[in-house]
Amino acid sequence: MSTTYRSAGVDVRRATDALSRIRDRVARTKRPEVIGDIGAFGGLFRVAGDLVLVATTDGVGTKLELARRLDRHEAVGADLVNHCVNDALAMGAEPLFFLDYFSTSRIQPLVFERVVGAMADACAAQGCALLGGETAEMPGMYAEGAYDLAGFLVGGVARDRLLDPASVREGDALVGLPSTGLHTNGYSLARAIVDRAGLDLGAPRPELRGGTLGDALMAVHRCYLEDVRALRARVTLRSIAHLTGGGWEGNLPRALPDGLGAAVDRGAWSVPPLFRVLGDAGSIAERERYDTWNMGIGLVCVVAAGEERDALRALPDAILIGRVERSSAATRVRWA
Amino acid sequence: MSTTYRSAGVDVRRATDALSRIRDRVARTKRPEVIGDIGAFGGLFRVAGDLVLVATTDGVGTKLELARRLDRHEAVGADLVNHCVNDALAMGAEPLFFLDYFSTSRIQPLVFERVVGAMADACAAQGCALLGGETAEMPGMYAEGAYDLAGFLVGGVARDRLLDPASVREGDALVGLPSTGLHTNGYSLARAIVDRAGLDLGAPRPELRGGTLGDALMAVHRCYLEDVRALRARVTLRSIAHLTGGGWEGNLPRALPDGLGAAVDRGAWSVPPLFRVLGDAGSIAERERYDTWNMGIGLVCVVAAGEERDALRALPDAILIGRVERSSAATRVRWA
Repeated sequence: MSTTYRSAGVDVRRATDALSRIRDRVARTKRPEVIGDIGAFGGLFRVAGDLVLVATTDGVGTKLELARRLDRHEAVGADLVNHCVNDALAMGAEPLFFLDYFSTSRIQPLVFERVVGAMADACAAQGCALLGGETAEMPGMYAEGAYDLAGFLVGGVARDRLLDPASVREGDALVGLPSTGLHTNGYSLARAIVDRAGLDLGAPRPELRGGTLGDALMAVHRCYLEDVRALRARVTLRSIAHLTGGGWEGNLPRALPDGLGAAVDRGAWSVPPLFRVLGDAGSIAERERYDTWNMGIGLVCVVAAGEERDALRALPDAILIGRVERSSAATRVRWA
Repeated sequence: MSTTYRSAGVDVRRATDALSRIRDRVARTKRPEVIGDIGAFGGLFRVAGDLVLVATTDGVGTKLELARRLDRHEAVGADLVNHCVNDALAMGAEPLFFLDYFSTSRIQPLVFERVVGAMADACAAQGCALLGGETAEMPGMYAEGAYDLAGFLVGGVARDRLLDPASVREGDALVGLPSTGLHTNGYSLARAIVDRAGLDLGAPRPELRGGTLGDALMAVHRCYLEDVRALRARVTLRSIAHLTGGGWEGNLPRALPDGLGAAVDRGAWSVPPLFRVLGDAGSIAERERYDTWNMGIGLVCVVAAGEERDALRALPDAILIGRVERSSAATRVRWA
């Protein structure tokens, strides 16, 4: 009996083929700070001066399963980058560089190209260097065609430009920015509803303006980089909450100091039909919906009281959704 | 029919429980540059002056499967950190901070604690801050009890301390440092051999000095940080190759410029018995062994000609394994 690495299920040539397919798109993410060559043991990025690095890591959860079912692999690549960029933004940082981890049982170079190519394009769009990545082929670890993704992003910000929840004051305005859909959170619940209620992902639905549930579920996580830049140029931005896993109660308090809470007017925006279609089909309690999904608002910016009008002028689709108030309750988002 | 996020297989309380179990060990990795609180959208790390950041990401491959079979979860946590530290070292950098991605179908808080706790301890041992992580619960994605790991490390180095393969000269010495075993590469081949040949992982073996194959396979990836520090303090270190996926031919040329190759004397060290046990049981061709596994040498340091004696004095277990020579061949490691 003779065994080779290939017969054990690992083919280095598949990985090489996969990587060669995205080389040009990765090269377009290069920034002047990037030094050194591809093929080194680590990616190199020069920084200078006093700087605070903001590091964040994320996955896209079981949206991966939908991407596979619907053959929409580009979406999750872009999702991963945008999710990480938004997390760095929430600390006040601009993205500097990104690395990805792609893990599967058997690399399919064409799928890899679609996923990681979309990551590269999303990085280029946000001015972020795609500095490296790991492509792992692990026979038997994943179901046929399945893969997992993790993204790592480092952003940078001058210390005095860090956003600090401790600076938030009673009466500050909560300015919401619309999401494109579920973004990258709450997909296990969404999939359970779809499967149990037998919802058709491919049929046009009048509630979704003739779009399909599959389209609505695969909408790409919106990146708020330009919005936050525009906002900081005009108003006093205190802090930001990125509404991801854990929904409103799980994230909005992260942008507030102890002793303060958020009074949010649920009537200030109309919840996109996707959330109603899913929530109603699954008979999901109202509170569970807001504790799992973003319900149509992907980012909440805490703006100094009195400056909310300027904030709304700076951002065409922003919505005043509430105020910061005193709160000693365990549940700090109050639906007003 | 009513569906909740918990009934869809995601329980935020399991994640919270898991995280609370490692909080103290993570806190011990804190460095003075770390600012801000746990619970923020990103980890914060201050840097100052002209600095090159070295970013690297890795997984531990299918060693994960062995860890699960043998209930040796601590090993893969430490492996992941040490693998990343060595990659940063190969560029000349010292580790600054680390983030982890832990992905599974259903979080088992006790397993999570063993894996990520070991990561925290490995970070603390290397003076590296564990700055953040993502714990993903993805129902249906992994087999019962299986999990995937990715690590992300940022190191720092002054520009003039970067190790540069372009500085390597003909005649430079190749100084090898022993590995503890397979480290984190070539496990798919090792597992295929174990399964096909029906090798017993738990029986003491005379060839392994009475140890078991399971013990030998789960040895933790050695971290070479102290060795490289000692070496740089005494000699002119040109470049480093970390022998990981792709073995000798896949990694040693990464530490050399075009036009130069490595003449390596395979007789300079004795290949640890683990490699012989596996290679013989699987009838693995000699070349395939060296193209997949490290064969007992985990790190190769390229030291300026004439300084090899000082290098060997600085490192008690280092071995002079060869020389840099001219090479125009596609295969740049020549077994001399």
